[in-house]
This record gives sequence, structure tokens and C-alpha cells, in this order.
Amino acid sequence: MPEHIPVDEAVAIGIDFGTLSGRAVVVRVRDGEELGDAVHEYRHGVVDRSLPADGRLLPPDWALQVPQDWRDVLRKAVPAALAAAGVSADQVIALGTDFTACTVLPATAAGAPLCELPQYADRPHAYPKLWKHHAAQDQADRINALAEQRGEAWLARYGGRISSEWQYAKALQLLEEDPELYAAAERWIEAADWIVWELTGVESRNQCTAGYKGIHQPDLLPGSGYPGRDFLAALNPGFADFTEKIDFPLSPLGGKAGGLSPRAAAWTGLIEGIPVSVGNVDAHVTNAAARALEPGHLLAIMGTSTCHIMNSDRLADVPGMCGAVRDGVVPGLWGYEAGQSGVGDIFAWAVRTALPEGYAREAHERGIGAHELLTEKAQAQPVGAHGLIALDWHSGNRSTLVDHHLSGLIVGLTLDTSPEDVYRALLEATAFGTRVIVDAFERSGVPVTDFTVAGGLPKNAFLMQIYADVLRRPVNVIGSEQGGALGSAIHAAVAAGAYPDIHSASAAMGRIRRDVYLPDPERARDYDLLYAEYRELHDHFGRDRLAGGSNVMHRLRALRAQARTAQAADARTANARAANADPSTPATSATPATTDLPASRADLDGVPA
Amino acid sequence: MPEHIPVDEAVAIGIDFGTLSGRAVVVRVRDGEELGDAVHEYRHGVVDRSLPADGRLLPPDWALQVPQDWRDVLRKAVPAALAAAGVSADQVIALGTDFTACTVLPATAAGAPLCELPQYADRPHAYPKLWKHHAAQDQADRINALAEQRGEAWLARYGGRISSEWQYAKALQLLEEDPELYAAAERWIEAADWIVWELTGVESRNQCTAGYKGIHQPDLLPGSGYPGRDFLAALNPGFADFTEKIDFPLSPLGGKAGGLSPRAAAWTGLIEGIPVSVGNVDAHVTNAAARALEPGHLLAIMGTSTCHIMNSDRLADVPGMCGAVRDGVVPGLWGYEAGQSGVGDIFAWAVRTALPEGYAREAHERGIGAHELLTEKAQAQPVGAHGLIALDWHSGNRSTLVDHHLSGLIVGLTLDTSPEDVYRALLEATAFGTRVIVDAFERSGVPVTDFTVAGGLPKNAFLMQIYADVLRRPVNVIGSEQGGALGSAIHAAVAAGAYPDIHSASAAMGRIRRDVYLPDPERARDYDLLYAEYRELHDHFGRDRLAGGSNVMHRLRALRAQARTAQAADARTANARAANADPSTPATSATPATTDLPASRADLDGVPA
Repeated sequence: MPEHIPVDEAVAIGIDFGTLSGRAVVVRVRDGEELGDAVHEYRHGVVDRSLPADGRLLPPDWALQVPQDWRDVLRKAVPAALAAAGVSADQVIALGTDFTACTVLPATAAGAPLCELPQYADRPHAYPKLWKHHAAQDQADRINALAEQRGEAWLARYGGRISSEWQYAKALQLLEEDPELYAAAERWIEAADWIVWELTGVESRNQCTAGYKGIHQPDLLPGSGYPGRDFLAALNPGFADFTEKIDFPLSPLGGKAGGLSPRAAAWTGLIEGIPVSVGNVDAHVTNAAARALEPGHLLAIMGTSTCHIMNSDRLADVPGMCGAVRDGVVPGLWGYEAGQSGVGDIFAWAVRTALPEGYAREAHERGIGAHELLTEKAQAQPVGAHGLIALDWHSGNRSTLVDHHLSGLIVGLTLDTSPEDVYRALLEATAFGTRVIVDAFERSGVPVTDFTVAGGLPKNAFLMQIYADVLRRPVNVIGSEQGGALGSAIHAAVAAGAYPDIHSASAAMGRIRRDVYLPDPERARDYDLLYAEYRELHDHFGRDRLAGGSNVMHRLRALRAQARTAQAADARTANARAANADPSTPATSATPATTDLPASRADLDGVPA
Repeated sequence: MPEHIPVDEAVAIGIDFGTLSGRAVVVRVRDGEELGDAVHEYRHGVVDRSLPADGRLLPPDWALQVPQDWRDVLRKAVPAALAAAGVSADQVIALGTDFTACTVLPATAAGAPLCELPQYADRPHAYPKLWKHHAAQDQADRINALAEQRGEAWLARYGGRISSEWQYAKALQLLEEDPELYAAAERWIEAADWIVWELTGVESRNQCTAGYKGIHQPDLLPGSGYPGRDFLAALNPGFADFTEKIDFPLSPLGGKAGGLSPRAAAWTGLIEGIPVSVGNVDAHVTNAAARALEPGHLLAIMGTSTCHIMNSDRLADVPGMCGAVRDGVVPGLWGYEAGQSGVGDIFAWAVRTALPEGYAREAHERGIGAHELLTEKAQAQPVGAHGLIALDWHSGNRSTLVDHHLSGLIVGLTLDTSPEDVYRALLEATAFGTRVIVDAFERSGVPVTDFTVAGGLPKNAFLMQIYADVLRRPVNVIGSEQGGALGSAIHAAVAAGAYPDIHSASAAMGRIRRDVYLPDPERARDYDLLYAEYRELHDHFGRDRLAGGSNVMHRLRALRAQARTAQAADARTANARAANADPSTPATSATPATTDLPASRADLDGVPA
């Protein structure tokens, strides 16, 4: 720590780059006290309809961002947070960041995003692809098929499936859809690393995104640690040298990436040269904030989806992981990541589609939110009284089935099933989904000793009690509402040398409230009965769908896709006809849309009949 | 036909006694023209909470009615309908009635309902039990178990299961819960027959309710045609002579039960002595109104539930029938009845629980109903575009599974599933449920040649088109909005001798619009794919639930019942505690309800593990 700053006054700044905004928090290094914070909303938010440069429409499933929005967080939120904290710039000993991932962009060797070069501003592929850009599914499917065919050992580290959200699928899409831009991209870089480059003027790459999103598995892949030239060439001959765009030295988490550049010092109002820590991911950085770093301590970051992060001293093939990465959360341990694709967004769906007018009015009159109202109505009933079981697969199943063509289900409906019954069944379903993941760890020989929650959902005490009862475990709660930014500040403090490592910084600056929710033995026993039903449905429609169970979810998904494609084609034809029509001819009346669905169920299964 | 009335002016009156009101319609005998009608709402409606006499609370699942409410229909609705038609009493050549069934009451040998005797007015069992009185399930279960054990041949005529709604279960409940009243009941009589007794002063019994609700199967049961003394005694020794309360000569449908009594003439303003036809059931009488009497012509009366009535010249064991009764619809043919427990009430449930505030506002602003709005939004999409399949078992499954512990299911939910998607999936599910019934007839060697709809739901054209597409058949529509009352008037005309039989009266007075909806080949082909999915789920959760499928619905139902029972017990304990509490002691804070659920799934299956 710089000697001129009294230890009581030293602060670190953590900046959490989210999907719609960035948040800066000023944190006292001594004890992790959060002294002030500020949020800056991205001007362009998620670019998923049309390109800002010229308004051209984007295809479905695209999601881009604009780098200047991220810089604006540095320029606006950092000074505002300092002001809110009543702290002067010379008290700030370091800066740390975390980012959504995999959010990735093509750049020059100097770090300029291609979208900021005038000649490329009208090219969609020049922009950063946000984590939820889902237009590279074809590329992901080919990556997985090839890896399976070649028996690539690294595939098991990722639950047997590389996501379309990750670096390789997105890069391959760039190559195949805009080869000129692919050639111009001297770098393919995570936004987590790019923002650190912006702050320091020095290129660095972090262990976390390289492992989780970039297939960096050095014990399995000799040489660079990334998939080799022959694998890449088999995907596409033009992809053979892709590694050159990403293979730069990896820095350990908590390390110093560089000093704050003069330019970034001017943006932020901070002092030039203060340490900036190595880039990191919003979920993974939160474990430090929640003091959830020891092996076996599972942190569930619960929001629209849930991310499960846990360190272990053991390496095992746990089914359906998003990734198992050495040094991926803290140096020296295996970091595991699992996930539930839909959690809070399923509850939001219920409010959006199944909140009757009378309920909405009641919530409004009482000045409470819809979720609060439904929770209040749902929590009075004993376990099992609604008679429902739901499968929480409205967004597919990330862990442990790794199958995004699954869908939500609810069974047990009767004429007196109420909206709060359905809402409660959905809350419970996500808890059952978490139990499947915890069970998968333990069955694979990776013990789970502690369970802690962070994110936006833990403020629902009833939901948390369900988790405690369903998991039959105490539930701890992070002691901060901005776990990402606090975690980044902790990493910054380590980079500044205020603590020798992330563990000690976390112990001093992190915040956890232990045993906030304890399982009730009676309810836990009753939930065991419901969990058995959940597992039966889970296995029938998910795990065993091609082996004695039912593949109905995949078939319905295929039918839906084909019906919608046909509908869109019909609409285009109708538009074209209307555009070309002789204005004196009356328009034909609307006829029911017809489709071109397949002739048999075997076609829908997508598998040999 | 009385000779003093010109044929052009002769009318018959049909009275349809529903669940909440009775409707009288004045019908021209020559051509079935409906000249005027009137409705009278029952003052007591459905008595399901407390007894009118003294306000005493009824147990759960009870549903009673008050006979005076039915008399009031004669006193109010008949004169009002005459006035509306501008018809004088001397033009009325006959009166016919139809009733809900099995709505049944204990009476004296003179036809006085026991509830109208002052000494019994405070006894719940003295009142008529409405068709949807569901508190005799225990008795029904025992009847079924005994019939199965004894291998009673008649059981197959009722889909293998006697309903708790029918005569025997309700009578056995009376015996076992109020034996003194049982002894006082010299008669046990359907309201359909009782109202005719009131109109004529003469006791009569009709073939329809005797067969469908009273287990009258003379070709299988020698003697009275009803189950014998030994069977009844095995249920309960006190039940041995039950047949004495019901075994009176049966009159053919369309026959004359008697002439209008002086008292009833005074009530109605009609001329004493005009013929009153034999009692009948609201569903079964409608076939005559829809000209759906020929063998193979299936009539679906679609409302909150759907009743399927069809004549055939063949007797076969069709799985899951509510009943197959010789002369049960018209003399000389086998009448089949099947049913779907939930149809319109499932759509109403969707509106009640899943119509968002914005939708409600839109419907209000546009001055249309919620069903209309949802239908409009749902009908634009091509078949399969919502990606959903529902099982329409929110009220259980009457035909062909005869299982009221099944429940509703929906699969294929995603975050962009909209309320109209769910609504459409429910519409489609009821069409698939109808197809299962039609298929069951045909597979059993009972051909279905025509399909006609009546009731309240056919006004939804989109729903009807779905039925045409799913069934791959033309859909005819009854030409009357009051099919029950028109059917009763047709039977009255036959009783008066205006026509030689129901067939010829139906041909002259009934109304059908043929081929209103024709199947679209492309949509029919696409629906075949969805129907295959429906069948898979239907078989897995219903047909095969104990044989390789899943019994989850039964287990969830059992859990729900036990949780609710425990909750009610807790509430009673808490109330008792509160009532006895020392007022100086502060009330204990609410603790989450606990239950006493079974320890294992095998206990929930209700079957050997």
C-alpha cells in the first residue's frame, strides 16, 4: 500500500460492467466498507435490433454492444462514486474491474475496436458481441460435433458442450460471415481484458475467461493450451490460425495488469499510475466478495439466471458443468462453474403472463411489487398444498443437462390452481434445479460444504427459505448488494499489495451473513417427496429423453421453429405481393397461415427414428 | 293434436332446468320455430355453504338445491315465455321438461320432498343433492370395488366406474350419514322425474336417468333390472332393500307421463289436462333438437364441460363411457354417453388466472370479452407455432380414462410463451380430448358418421375450426341457442301425438346447420403431429400411469389433499387455542404451517409399491 495514505483512509474502486449499465463502488481497503457508489446506464444498452451507425436491421438472435458506452462508465460513474463516498482521488490505491462474459470483440494490435474504425462502423461483425448473442449456434454445433468425433478430452470439462455464447463459436461466425473483418481483427479479446487495456494502455489476458470461455486447458492441450491448428482447420481452413488472435500471456487473477494510463486518469479523475488489477468476470469475482473461496463453498449468484461458482482442490468430471478451470477463480484451485439458464426471468415471466388484473390492482393499491404480492399469497400454504410440480426449463437447462431445446412444464393444474400456486411452484422448481446441481457435485466426488447466495433474488426471504428446506442446508447470504463491484475492489487491493493474496483480502474485505436460513426438518422431509417427483419428470423429459423417456420437448421446439419460419416466409411473400400489387386490385383477404411442418415425429426428433 | 287448435298455431313448451336457473321456451309445433322464452334464476342457486333453514355450515364438496326454486320456474318463467311469444294458453298443446342429472332427492310416497317436511328442514340430507355434489366419493369407491370384485357385467357399461355423482353413491351416503332420514325416504327420485310428478300429480320414471344414473340394465340384471339385494347388502346391510325406493315402471322417452294437474295449471297459467311428457336429461334431450338421432351421429354439448351423446344400433364395450343404455336416448337404439369433465371451465380458468392487466384493459377499452380477445390474438399463428401441448384434465378425465385424480399439464413453456399461446393450447387440448373419444368409439366398432355441436361454446368460430381440423371431420352446429328447451318441446309434441315418434318430431322441429366448419387438409396434417404428442402424454400420465407411465398426478393430488387437511386441522387448533386463550397473553406469531405428509412415494400411489 502506498505509504503516504493512512491505512484507515485507503480505498479501492471496483467497477462492475453489467448488461445494461456499469457500477463503480468505493471500498475501504481496511475492512471492505462500501463508502459510495454510482451507476451509469449504457446509452445504447443492448444493440439487438439495428446498428447505431446507420440503423441497419440486425438478424434474429444478435446482441451487440458499443465500447464507448463502457468508457463512459469510467468517465461518469467513477467520479460520481468518489463524490458520493466523500473520498479524494489520492486515497484511491487501486482499481479493479469485472465484466459480463463471454462478451468479446475484434480489435487491432493497438487495442482499437474494429467498430471504431470509420471504414467498419457499418459492419455488424465489427461490434462487440454481448454474452447473449445467440446467432452462432450453427458454429457451436459444429465445434461440438467435431470435438465429439475426435474424442477431445477437454469437452468433458465443459459439460460435453461448448456454448454458442463463447469465444470460438462467435469468432467462427465472424470468419464465415465477414471474412474481411476477420482478417482485419489482429486481436479477438474479451471485453473483460479490453477494458483493462483501455485503463492501462497495456494488453493483458486473464485466466478466468481464457479457461471458461476460451477452452484454455493447458494440462490437456500441449503447446498454447488452446485447441490446436488441426482442430481449427477442420472447422474451417480459414480458422487454422485463429489462436494467433488470442494467445498472449495469461495473468493470474488478483495480479496487477498495469498502472492507470494518463488518458484513463483523465477520464476517471484518479491518479496516474495506480495499479489496475487483471480483468475478471462478474460472477467469478463475487466469490471473493462473499468470502466463498475455500474448497467446497458454493456461491449461487441469483438473478435472471443463476451462476454457481465453487473452488475445489479436486478435479473431477462433474456432469453438465459450464467449465472446470485450474486457477479460474483463485490461483491454485480448480474453479467450477455451473448454471441455471432461467431463474428470476421465469418468475418475471409468471408476473408478465399470469398476474390477473385484480392482483395487479391490489399490488398497486398497497404500494408493493407484483413479486412481493405473489410471494405473500404463496407463502401461507404448507408444502405440497398447491399440488403442482414445475420444470424450470423455460430457458432450457444449462446444468446438468446442457440442453437449450428443453422447455418449461407444469403438472397438477386444477380449476382452483391460483396464480400464487403457479408462482410458488416455479420458485420451488428453481430450488429443485439447484439441488440437482449440488447432487451432481457430490456424486462426482466434489463435496459441497457451504452454500451461499448473492445477486438480486436473495432479498426474497421466502425463496431463500425454500432453498434451505429443499437443499437441507443452511443458506448464507452475501453481505453486499453489489457483490461484483466489491469483488473487483478486493482484487484491486490485492493487485496493490494491500493483501498478499485474494484469500486474505476476501477475509478482511468480503462480507457474508452465515446461517441466515436454516432448513426446517418437517418441510425438508415434505420437499423430499416433491423433489422425487421433480426428478422423475426431469429424467423422463430431460436426461432420458432418447433412452426410454420422452423427447416431446425437442419435437415441440422443432415444430415451433418450423411453423414460425413458415409464417415469416408467408409474411414476406405477402409483403412482396402487396408491394407489387396493382393498386386497382383489391387485396386478398387474410387466409390462415399454413406451414410446412415435417411429415413425421421421427423427423422432429432430429435423431434416427 | 287437439282438433280445436289450427296446426299453424299449435305450440309446445319446453322447460330446461339448469344448475342456476330454469328456462321456458315456446316452440311452434309445425316447424320448431322458437316464438319466445324466459329465464328464472333460482333464489338459492347452488346450496354449497350453509343450509337455508338455519344457516348451518355444510361440509366440503356438498351441493344441494331447494325444490321450491324449481316450482318457481313453473310459476314465473312459463307465463313470461308465453307473454314473450305473444301466444295464448289455449294454443299450448303440451309441456316437456329436462333436468340436470343426477340431481336426486328423498321424498314421501306422495312425492313430498323430505326437506319440505318441517321436522326435516334442518337436515342437510333431506335436500336434493345436485349433480355436482361430490361428497359421496367414499361410497362410490366401495361400489366400484365391490362390483369389480364380484365381476359385475354391468360395470363395463359405465366405463368400469360408477360415479360419485350418481344415484347409488348418493343414496348410500344418505343411509350411512342419516339413517333415520333414509328410512323416512319412501322414494329416491331424480329431479327429472320429480318435476314431472309435480306437473301431473302422477309418479313416473324415465328410461334415461334409470339407465345412465341408476344402473338399470335389464339384459344383464334379471328381475328389477337394477343391482340385486345381495349386492346392495354387501355394501351395507341396511341398503339391501334400496331398490324398493326406485323400482317403479319405466316410461319411454317421448311418452306422456300424465295430464297437467289443476295445481300446476294454476302455477303456469296453462290449461289443465294438457299432456306432459316423461322426464328427461338436459344433455340427452338435445339430440332431438339438433336432429342428431340417427345411429352414428355424435352430438357434443359443449359448455363448462362437454357431454357426448350418440345413438347406435350396436352394443359394444367402448372404453370409458359414462353409460351405454338401451332406449336411453330414443326407444329402440343404444344410447351412448361420454364426457369431458373440463372444457369451458378450463378456458375460464385461463382467463381468471392468466389474463394480464394490459389484456384486461384492452378488452375493456375495445368493449369485447376476454375470451374474444384471447381468441383473436391466438388465431393468427400457424399450427404448432406456440410450441405447447396441454392436457385438458384440470377437472380430471371423464372419458375415456374415468379418472378424476388426473390433473392438467402444459409443456413447451418458454420465456416468450404468451397468454394467448397458453389459451390456444388449452382450446386445442379439448379438441384432442374429443378426438380420443371419437377414436374410442370407432376402434370399438361403433362408427361415428356425423359430428354436431351444441351448447354455449360453438359461438367461438375459431374453436370450432380447431375441432374440424383436429377431428378431420365436418362440424355441424345446432340451429338453436336453447337446445335443451327445444328438445323438451319436441318430446312434448310427441307426447301430445303431434308426431308419431321422436325421430319425426326432430326432423320437423329440430335445427341443424350442416358442414359449418370443414377441415383444412394442411392444418389437419399439422395437428396430427401435435395429436401424436398429446397421445404420448395422455398415455404416459393417464392410461399407463401404473404400467410403465407416471403416476405423478395421483401422487400430487394425494399430497395436496393431505397438506390441505393438515392445514385445516392446524387452523382449527389455532382457532380453538385463540378462543381459549387468556386475553392477557399475547397471540403467538404465525408459524409456517406444517403437514403430516406420507413418508414415501409408494404411500402416495395408493397402490402396492
